[in-house]
Amino acid sequence: MPHRALANLQNLYRIFTVPEAPDSTLGAIDKAITGDVAGFLQNHIVAVERPLEEIEASFSTVTIPEEPTYVSDYTEFVKENLVAQSVHTAAPGFVGHMTSAIPYFMLPLTRLMTALNQNTVKVETSKAFTPMERQVLAMLHHLIYRCPEEFYPPWIHNSQSALGAFCSGGTIANITALWLARNRLFAPQGTFNGIAQEGLLRSLRHHGLDGIAILVSERGHYSLGKAADLLGIGRDQLVRVKTAANNRIDLLALREVCGQLADQNIKPLALVGIAGTTETGNVDPLEQMADVAAELGCHFHVDAAWGGPTLFSEQHRHLLAGIERADSVTIDAHKQLYVPMGAGMVIFKDPTAVSAIEHHAAYILRHGSKDLGSHTLEGSRPGKALLVHAGLSIIGRKGYELLINLGIERAKTFADLIKQHPDFELTSEPELNILTYRYCPAAVQQALATACPEEQSKMNALLDQICQLLQKIQREAGKTFVSRTRLRTDRYRDEITVLRSVLANPLTTNEILHTVLQEQIEIVRQPEIMALLDQL
Amino acid sequence: MPHRALANLQNLYRIFTVPEAPDSTLGAIDKAITGDVAGFLQNHIVAVERPLEEIEASFSTVTIPEEPTYVSDYTEFVKENLVAQSVHTAAPGFVGHMTSAIPYFMLPLTRLMTALNQNTVKVETSKAFTPMERQVLAMLHHLIYRCPEEFYPPWIHNSQSALGAFCSGGTIANITALWLARNRLFAPQGTFNGIAQEGLLRSLRHHGLDGIAILVSERGHYSLGKAADLLGIGRDQLVRVKTAANNRIDLLALREVCGQLADQNIKPLALVGIAGTTETGNVDPLEQMADVAAELGCHFHVDAAWGGPTLFSEQHRHLLAGIERADSVTIDAHKQLYVPMGAGMVIFKDPTAVSAIEHHAAYILRHGSKDLGSHTLEGSRPGKALLVHAGLSIIGRKGYELLINLGIERAKTFADLIKQHPDFELTSEPELNILTYRYCPAAVQQALATACPEEQSKMNALLDQICQLLQKIQREAGKTFVSRTRLRTDRYRDEITVLRSVLANPLTTNEILHTVLQEQIEIVRQPEIMALLDQL
Repeated sequence: MPHRALANLQNLYRIFTVPEAPDSTLGAIDKAITGDVAGFLQNHIVAVERPLEEIEASFSTVTIPEEPTYVSDYTEFVKENLVAQSVHTAAPGFVGHMTSAIPYFMLPLTRLMTALNQNTVKVETSKAFTPMERQVLAMLHHLIYRCPEEFYPPWIHNSQSALGAFCSGGTIANITALWLARNRLFAPQGTFNGIAQEGLLRSLRHHGLDGIAILVSERGHYSLGKAADLLGIGRDQLVRVKTAANNRIDLLALREVCGQLADQNIKPLALVGIAGTTETGNVDPLEQMADVAAELGCHFHVDAAWGGPTLFSEQHRHLLAGIERADSVTIDAHKQLYVPMGAGMVIFKDPTAVSAIEHHAAYILRHGSKDLGSHTLEGSRPGKALLVHAGLSIIGRKGYELLINLGIERAKTFADLIKQHPDFELTSEPELNILTYRYCPAAVQQALATACPEEQSKMNALLDQICQLLQKIQREAGKTFVSRTRLRTDRYRDEITVLRSVLANPLTTNEILHTVLQEQIEIVRQPEIMALLDQL
Repeated sequence: MPHRALANLQNLYRIFTVPEAPDSTLGAIDKAITGDVAGFLQNHIVAVERPLEEIEASFSTVTIPEEPTYVSDYTEFVKENLVAQSVHTAAPGFVGHMTSAIPYFMLPLTRLMTALNQNTVKVETSKAFTPMERQVLAMLHHLIYRCPEEFYPPWIHNSQSALGAFCSGGTIANITALWLARNRLFAPQGTFNGIAQEGLLRSLRHHGLDGIAILVSERGHYSLGKAADLLGIGRDQLVRVKTAANNRIDLLALREVCGQLADQNIKPLALVGIAGTTETGNVDPLEQMADVAAELGCHFHVDAAWGGPTLFSEQHRHLLAGIERADSVTIDAHKQLYVPMGAGMVIFKDPTAVSAIEHHAAYILRHGSKDLGSHTLEGSRPGKALLVHAGLSIIGRKGYELLINLGIERAKTFADLIKQHPDFELTSEPELNILTYRYCPAAVQQALATACPEEQSKMNALLDQICQLLQKIQREAGKTFVSRTRLRTDRYRDEITVLRSVLANPLTTNEILHTVLQEQIEIVRQPEIMALLDQL
């Protein structure tokens, strides 16, 4: 081998075997994170607000570099162009999305998980991670369904069954649940080999149906639309039922829709209840929905991606009453289980239901094997269940209860602040820890109350513009952050733009919530917004 | 607030703000990993082979602990029950699955990524990670399609298009590609609103078809079956074409199958070429397959989850000739880009193709936004593109070339060793860095060569048992590891059980390959196997 190539080869071995020196830039960043998690993320990373277009310029070369780069040089690049330009999702004033500070122990454990680099698709590359993941799914099953402890031993580590499926997030969890529901509806029967084998067309023909539908309120997560598309059902058959008070599904409207579907020879495949809507944090009447699902003889899925952990709270778990009647439940670990991004779960009430989506291969996932991959939508996967296991063990039920209670309390406090302020309008009452509101000067609120629908629409259109601008200016200032969405409320005919706040970060104080509103009050004094206000 | 609750609250804040002490167990594990990656993973974690049932016992409590646990106590549990019971996927002698040692810089960067906890579904929670991910996709696009550099500026950061989609792994990548292919085939047309909206039944009716099919060789990855199920096509319509020599699709058989489908009024939705089959590492004749796809007017997808990075090698990239004609290509970053588990990509030739799977929501993914989530199958996702970006930057094209060349060379060396040994039979020639073989004593090889098919079958059945037992004993001994699968070869009528070796770990030496065979020679001398050999 020529000398030059040998030198390269030795360098190559180095990067696989020799760690960064403690005094290298990467070593220093690593140490800073280890030494001062909260401080590092809240102060050290000063996100200078640069326009996105400018940041894009640093990421525009398309040719892969020919020559290797020193880790130290690369780290300098990362520090300047990535870390400094990242969003402080952990900052206590970042209350606009479903992000939070995460417990510090998640960092070394993530590193451990990465170093072990297990692949949970099969036991041969995961070993202890397989039973651990199964335990985590059993723990969540127990949290939701509260089956007696003697229910679990035959199922928990049984290769023929699964109490749930671990996945990269709530979207895959929801898709998995509906995939399972669809395949159970069209299970093998006589000469019909089932939908997994024969496809949707022959399944509908076999059952003499003109279609299948998924029912959910208009607050359903957008992943359900993706599922309807992906599963071949079509978004037209994702029937979005209107909501009644407090963003909950209107049960009368639901029954009406069911009648219409029956007239069209369309069978409801699944009814989806929401435990914590993404936009407003409200919970559907799960108990009554379970009744409807039972009447329809269809799968009942509960999307508790956000609200699931409310079950930890003795005080608030009643809000989710009826969830124990769901055939499947989605819970996101990277939301209110405080696990880093990329971990979700779907839990199945019946441990044998999973056979509807089971699959095998010759080199892995063999029949009878304990390989988790035989019933997950994903294939190769990291051992993220470790982080859920760690959270449940270290924080404990009571710790999570405290976190949940804190968030709901904080949301009520914030709602009170908004209601007390004459120039803000609360647009959805917090039931869990999410609320929406908008800036709407007292005089305009009065005018709206008596205006005719046409006048209301005009005023709301202006208020929408103000809301949008306000949110943008606040985000760009980078001190605090709320998000925005579009919402139909009880008060107006129009869908309106509202500000949205999610209160899941335990480090968010009441003072910070004061600051959020104070900042908004100051922003609306800017000429751009004043000009719009003048038109009201 | 009562005193006891306050104490809890303070403890709660602590876990979000105070890191583990350097002398704590977690701190020590963390330091050990930081200080000596290779050593830690290869020596310090002594995986004592305990039966799975015994390990399961440590993970069988279903009640979530009521009270919080000290991180140190939990870490002790993890050390003993998880780390010590994990599989050395990074060990140089673990040559049975698609695992490898990973470059050390991936660990601190993973920790950094976790600490930043960005959510790449939307710019508001990811900022610089969004353009970085887009750049990574463009780099891979450029690697595959080699478009001139001036092709990229209009597309790379364009919110209306995407050069690919990042995902948690190759399975989601393959599903995304076929989802896109299906939706493009049934795009909106006149009064027909497209399959995403109207579903599969109405799409087939609109086109007057009795079905759609996916074509792939019998070596196709099992994720394609999952895709056929999920997308409503049905596994019956995943047509597995037989292979010709060297595990490549038989082009004559392919054309024959196409004729049969046409007779049944079934339209081929996609033809899938494989660049590196999972079991044998062979590459389909992509150029000729591109011709067939063009004739059929169907989507051409290449599953290069494993073999894609061969494109880095000037010496070997010709093996993938024709890949630049694919409409979409899957590449797994957690395979031969040496990124930790949980990162895959699908690259689209046409940056506008993604509109077929585009979706929006009111609070994020708004029309015109740069949110990556508007065209990914998953929703919330971590910023894993950082690790690919780091690999491409630090290792560089030439570094990856070296890794690829090394692996292919090593596989040829191993194949020679096997061929030279009278008691082993090579069952697939390595084209990339994967090969299969089996233990088959010289005398039996001779007997097989002249035996009638019935006799061959009997002997092969016994050899299968030996192979299975041999692999199990070697795995349990825990020194070296190869995997096993079932394969139909040119030589016998029967599908046979073979040992499978993947040579992607740069730390695997020729000496280790010697040891693998030596160990196997010793294992077959065990009475259990001797008894079977006696029957031959």
